[in-house]
Amino acid sequence: MKFPILIINFKSYKEAAGPRAVEIAKAAERAAKELGVNIAVAPNHFELALVAQSVEIPVYAQGVDVESAGAYTAHTALENVKEVGASGVILNHSEAPLRLNDLGRFIPKARALGLDVVTCAPDPRTSLAAAALGPSAVAVEPPELIGTGKAVSKYKPETVVETVQLVSKHFPDVAVITGAGIESGEDVEAALRLGTKGVLLASAAVKAKNHYQKIMELAKPLVR
Amino acid sequence: MKFPILIINFKSYKEAAGPRAVEIAKAAERAAKELGVNIAVAPNHFELALVAQSVEIPVYAQGVDVESAGAYTAHTALENVKEVGASGVILNHSEAPLRLNDLGRFIPKARALGLDVVTCAPDPRTSLAAAALGPSAVAVEPPELIGTGKAVSKYKPETVVETVQLVSKHFPDVAVITGAGIESGEDVEAALRLGTKGVLLASAAVKAKNHYQKIMELAKPLVR
Amino acid sequence: MKFPILIINFKSYKEAAGPRAVEIAKAAERAAKELGVNIAVAPNHFELALVAQSVEIPVYAQGVDVESAGAYTAHTALENVKEVGASGVILNHSEAPLRLNDLGRFIPKARALGLDVVTCAPDPRTSLAAAALGPSAVAVEPPELIGTGKAVSKYKPETVVETVQLVSKHFPDVAVITGAGIESGEDVEAALRLGTKGVLLASAAVKAKNHYQKIMELAKPLVR
Amino acid sequence: MKFPILIINFKSYKEAAGPRAVEIAKAAERAAKELGVNIAVAPNHFELALVAQSVEIPVYAQGVDVESAGAYTAHTALENVKEVGASGVILNHSEAPLRLNDLGRFIPKARALGLDVVTCAPDPRTSLAAAALGPSAVAVEPPELIGTGKAVSKYKPETVVETVQLVSKHFPDVAVITGAGIESGEDVEAALRLGTKGVLLASAAVKAKNHYQKIMELAKPLVR
Repeated sequence: MKFPILIINFKSYKEAAGPRAVEIAKAAERAAKELGVNIAVAPNHFELALVAQSVEIPVYAQGVDVESAGAYTAHTALENVKEVGASGVILNHSEAPLRLNDLGRFIPKARALGLDVVTCAPDPRTSLAAAALGPSAVAVEPPELIGTGKAVSKYKPETVVETVQLVSKHFPDVAVITGAGIESGEDVEAALRLGTKGVLLASAAVKAKNHYQKIMELAKPLVR
Repeated sequence: MKFPILIINFKSYKEAAGPRAVEIAKAAERAAKELGVNIAVAPNHFELALVAQSVEIPVYAQGVDVESAGAYTAHTALENVKEVGASGVILNHSEAPLRLNDLGRFIPKARALGLDVVTCAPDPRTSLAAAALGPSAVAVEPPELIGTGKAVSKYKPETVVETVQLVSKHFPDVAVITGAGIESGEDVEAALRLGTKGVLLASAAVKAKNHYQKIMELAKPLVR
Repeated sequence: MKFPILIINFKSYKEAAGPRAVEIAKAAERAAKELGVNIAVAPNHFELALVAQSVEIPVYAQGVDVESAGAYTAHTALENVKEVGASGVILNHSEAPLRLNDLGRFIPKARALGLDVVTCAPDPRTSLAAAALGPSAVAVEPPELIGTGKAVSKYKPETVVETVQLVSKHFPDVAVITGAGIESGEDVEAALRLGTKGVLLASAAVKAKNHYQKIMELAKPLVR
Repeated sequence: MKFPILIINFKSYKEAAGPRAVEIAKAAERAAKELGVNIAVAPNHFELALVAQSVEIPVYAQGVDVESAGAYTAHTALENVKEVGASGVILNHSEAPLRLNDLGRFIPKARALGLDVVTCAPDPRTSLAAAALGPSAVAVEPPELIGTGKAVSKYKPETVVETVQLVSKHFPDVAVITGAGIESGEDVEAALRLGTKGVLLASAAVKAKNHYQKIMELAKPLVR
């Protein structure tokens, strides 16, 4: 997984459903190429294969339910994230929380499959626990700020700083990124200044009138 | 929803992941057209949009987590089933059981969206309860036979017959189909002879060496 | 199960924790004896055995997780409801919703154990589905009124009436009771007048300053 | 929390249901007093209040569902563990796995309430993650050995040793205990020799013909 990175989570937004998922992913791809920065997109489950075959930037699953492919109706499998051509997975988003013991199996398995693994957590101590399991990155996201437009990097900078300190002390191989309420390039810049290696965001990009322009704004602070 | 129908559930099988999902769906489409019968495919979540834009036969989601599109990371939304161009949904498969109260909201909402709704249940009485909620069809599937190759239509005919009787007595507008262990055209024929209006199956079609040939065999009993 | 009945749900209220659960249960027992009516209490899991051995009126579990006793840490078993001396179980309360297929197994098993079974549901159609599974009673409780003090019998009488009609048409052996927002004897009386055979309530009794007095008021309409 | 400790988990065993829970707890209390060692009992939810008021040794809840007391039908609340007079809680037993984010809130809250907190985990790395959240102790329990009679201390000593090393390196304030398959005093002794500070067991004590004798055998290795 390459850093710094901007990860765009499409959630289950109607604005990113069906062919619109491909449009947003292509806007992100164009911005990534022009700026020479790392941008990954995380389409909804329904569009994962479609988007993975449409763009060359990293495509992440928003989560998984089980490790192996098989007789699991209506479940998403880690193994199939790879099969459809995606290159990473977000685990434990606050809207899709996972059991500790499942994370303890999913994270090593995902790494063994060569997938990027971003594990979300709501606070510094839980981020430390997530980091202990060996993901590529932990994304600290205070749930009370998600979707509010109040950027974590401005409203809870101490949460971000404490997470960076705790994780880098115990598990220096695990990157720390952040998210929640990120709306502007300025918010992204603030997040990087706090010591993170990237940002996870959703509505700011997905609901923008002009996806390409907005993603350009959000990704510019990643240019060194 | 048109009957009699053959519904092919791709589960999370590796054999139906990524581009292979489109291949199997196209084989089903070809068989449906040649025989002039109703065949629907239910790809895994990851391939739903991809398959829905690739074939003209009915495409069903294997399940959903929430009713509305929105800020639901790693969730599948009923509303988005429609957005991606699919035309139906399977609910309460024994591998993805749902809460009664969720079914009580999902089924009417799905019907209001114009989607076909197949609700699975393990036995006659639970099928009756499912039918009370107004789906297009209930699929009675004894879980102990799923994936065994022992066809419900041969090994538990009394379960099928009792379900047909109970449901048609109380809720005659709801069709009864069946599944579990269905491996051959003969099994499908037996199911229809017991009074059902179709069959839900998975591995027999998905794991066949020649998808087209196998689906032709399985679908032939639907020709009147 | 005897009707008409007043069922008092202690939820996880602090006001009904530990020895206070026994006090409230004894107040209910005293009221039941004086009025000669049926009152059941449903203490929290933590107090079930304690209350069951302290009073002679029916004691119900608030729910269960599994059917059989066994190696299930932190689970509540239907079989043990009986073992501790309780005589019934509430299933599918909107705060503890169950899967349709679990209800399909729990309800017949509970009846086979000789337990009273009250199954909750949020609306008429879901109540009909619950009734199809053969409980002693269904309790229709619109979740939006629970805990509001706006009695279902006054604010949603049509929901109650429609449930009574639907259930008695298809499954006349299943009693219909109701709940949500019930605060006074008047609310209970209104519920009975709508054709129900009882009421399920919680805070009105549990949080009363004088439990005995309040329960007397709530139970009086049950006297014929 | 005092160490070394023997914790007896009653699970949902019929052999420990109702008044039998009190009998086993009293046998444990007698053994604890005679040997002068720490023994805690974890009765099923249904007997928690009953046992807590019957013995003076530590009584632990087998788990909890929510943090606060309140309108949570059929849920167990951390706050009420305290209210009923219990002194600790087991979290994340492999039979009742919890979400990482819930553990991240429950553990600090339980410590703030003055409760002992034992958090289970299946392997060294997941134990490290659990330890990061600050419980009194982590109990490493390979799920494949639970209930087998093959003691973790004999069949997977390397798992125990690795957990002790990892946890003591990063979080030295957190004790490591172990469990799974522990059947005899010898197994307990082996566990202590591997560097743990205690043992969590279930059937060996609960299903013994003579509870007092068996608990004496199991607890003797704790005498210094």
